Amino acid sequence: MHYKLALIGFGNVARSLARLLVRKQELLKSKYDVTFSFVGISTGRHGCAVNPNGLDIQKALDLAESGQDISSLNDSQFPIANSLDVIQHCGADALFENSPVNTQTGQPALDHIRAALNLGMHAITANKGPVVHGYRELTQLAESKGKKFRFESAVMGGAPVFSVMREAFPLAELESFKGIFNATTNVILSRMESGETYEQALAHAQKIGLAETDPTNDVDGWDAAIKVAALVTVLWDAPITPQEVNPTGIRGITTEMIAQAKADGKRYKLVCFAEKADGKIKVGVTPQLVDAASPLYGMMDSSTGITFRTDVILDYSISVSEKPGMAGGPVETAYGLFADFANIVKE
Amino acid sequence: MHYKLALIGFGNVARSLARLLVRKQELLKSKYDVTFSFVGISTGRHGCAVNPNGLDIQKALDLAESGQDISSLNDSQFPIANSLDVIQHCGADALFENSPVNTQTGQPALDHIRAALNLGMHAITANKGPVVHGYRELTQLAESKGKKFRFESAVMGGAPVFSVMREAFPLAELESFKGIFNATTNVILSRMESGETYEQALAHAQKIGLAETDPTNDVDGWDAAIKVAALVTVLWDAPITPQEVNPTGIRGITTEMIAQAKADGKRYKLVCFAEKADGKIKVGVTPQLVDAASPLYGMMDSSTGITFRTDVILDYSISVSEKPGMAGGPVETAYGLFADFANIVKE
Repeated sequence: MHYKLALIGFGNVARSLARLLVRKQELLKSKYDVTFSFVGISTGRHGCAVNPNGLDIQKALDLAESGQDISSLNDSQFPIANSLDVIQHCGADALFENSPVNTQTGQPALDHIRAALNLGMHAITANKGPVVHGYRELTQLAESKGKKFRFESAVMGGAPVFSVMREAFPLAELESFKGIFNATTNVILSRMESGETYEQALAHAQKIGLAETDPTNDVDGWDAAIKVAALVTVLWDAPITPQEVNPTGIRGITTEMIAQAKADGKRYKLVCFAEKADGKIKVGVTPQLVDAASPLYGMMDSSTGITFRTDVILDYSISVSEKPGMAGGPVETAYGLFADFANIVKE
Repeated sequence: MHYKLALIGFGNVARSLARLLVRKQELLKSKYDVTFSFVGISTGRHGCAVNPNGLDIQKALDLAESGQDISSLNDSQFPIANSLDVIQHCGADALFENSPVNTQTGQPALDHIRAALNLGMHAITANKGPVVHGYRELTQLAESKGKKFRFESAVMGGAPVFSVMREAFPLAELESFKGIFNATTNVILSRMESGETYEQALAHAQKIGLAETDPTNDVDGWDAAIKVAALVTVLWDAPITPQEVNPTGIRGITTEMIAQAKADGKRYKLVCFAEKADGKIKVGVTPQLVDAASPLYGMMDSSTGITFRTDVILDYSISVSEKPGMAGGPVETAYGLFADFANIVKE
């Protein structure tokens, strides 16, 4: 089986994905008898290209990485001006959506995925926006077309979480989860424990490319809240918004509080949690003191993790630690997208 | 689809499984459109029963739990004297093998599973023996019959490990794993850190039903070694024996060594590991000092866990903690068997 692929968004993650697909090309062929080609690429500022006969992906990577426009690779009989044009005219079998994240609306990813599913493509994204704002609609749309909507990388940057609950916990009832989902705040709290001020620790997180220039989204807990919302929305099929999670960030945690916690053998962590009891779901993101008995205690720096409690296995924890500053980096996120694709094509 | 089930071995785990299947009956029907009946049961000391029209499972549970023979439930036209007779004449579609473990030979489980697969049944076990002694043969036999051989519960007592690597890490290359696989030794080391002697800690592990009267298998590392062998055999398709793992147990760890480690902020753990490099596999089970930076440091008491390193996600850790003394208890192990069944029937 041959799959034609479209890449909407061609930043670090999408380019890592393209390289990973090329690197795993032989394995896809030998294990699943699957081949692929790229038929459409849409970049943020360097144009679009469609070629139903297959684009030269190495050339596209070279152009994008040297800051050049990729439109020279375009070979479509239709005018191709934007992402929706690419989706409409590339004839892909699967779409990877990596356009910029808007967690308030889920756009433009939501429209891209909707268009792709309507055209009979599988849709795969690392973007939390369309999960929180469109999970049920997009899943139903995908099912009605016999296709899949997948988003493994939306939480814990590519480390398997959704697929573990889906594939490895069949017919289990999820009762609660608790975790650390935001690497930036975890790096800041870890470094404050080593004596840095909040400002120094934040500056470090920005220097290693983890925190944005405006760190609000991370330090006020919104990134964590949208991940909680995504997990609750998917795992319990219960749509909630980040606003309903109503997060408390880490700005109120002082060096004195951290020093006192350390003296008591404890640590502050930005804890994300959700619990279902009597049909009601309680959720939150809030700094909490944890001691060495908690699986969260050992998660330092950019490590993230989650503990699931189900009716069948009490506390099952997943954690991921990467090279310092690299958790949820482009390669890991790209693997989550790749794994979604591999799991779709092997079925 | 209706599945006829056979239970070979009817101890704690098998009886927990029977209860779990009954409890999840409605879900199996509503989610997968699957129904089931029990057509054969073989116990260790309380007889066997076959009824192709379905056994009364509640009656079988009551009889076995009050120490009575279950042969009164037998309604077969053939003489049923042992497990192989049950397998031969029950007409099951899936067999759960829970006979006593023999890690030296894998018998009698190996023969039971072979017979079941040859008769066109799926075969599911929690038993490490047939995995280490027959993985490749049984997998090939299953494939030739269009059936599955599954064993999620063989390592980490029912907590998903094999299915995670199989389903959630498609086309990833496993480079190494490291973990704590034996709950008994972890309980002993944890309690010695709190000031108990080895003898006191062992007596506690025996009292809570975790350690055997003869603790050799646990404390000398053989249980851990066979789990390492099972993982290596399956995950790299590279059969090795527990003897090749050549474990070192915890008998050499003194209270003084543990006190010194504690003073240094470290802990002894019975570390299991395997690493593949240049086509060669290095394996071991040995007590090691770990510090707070290790994911193994926080695994206390009966918690167990594993860290996988792959070419795509650096360090992905799974750990499971249960009620004190309950990790890998019959309910969790039963869920692993149930999950294997659920994953087979949903495909």
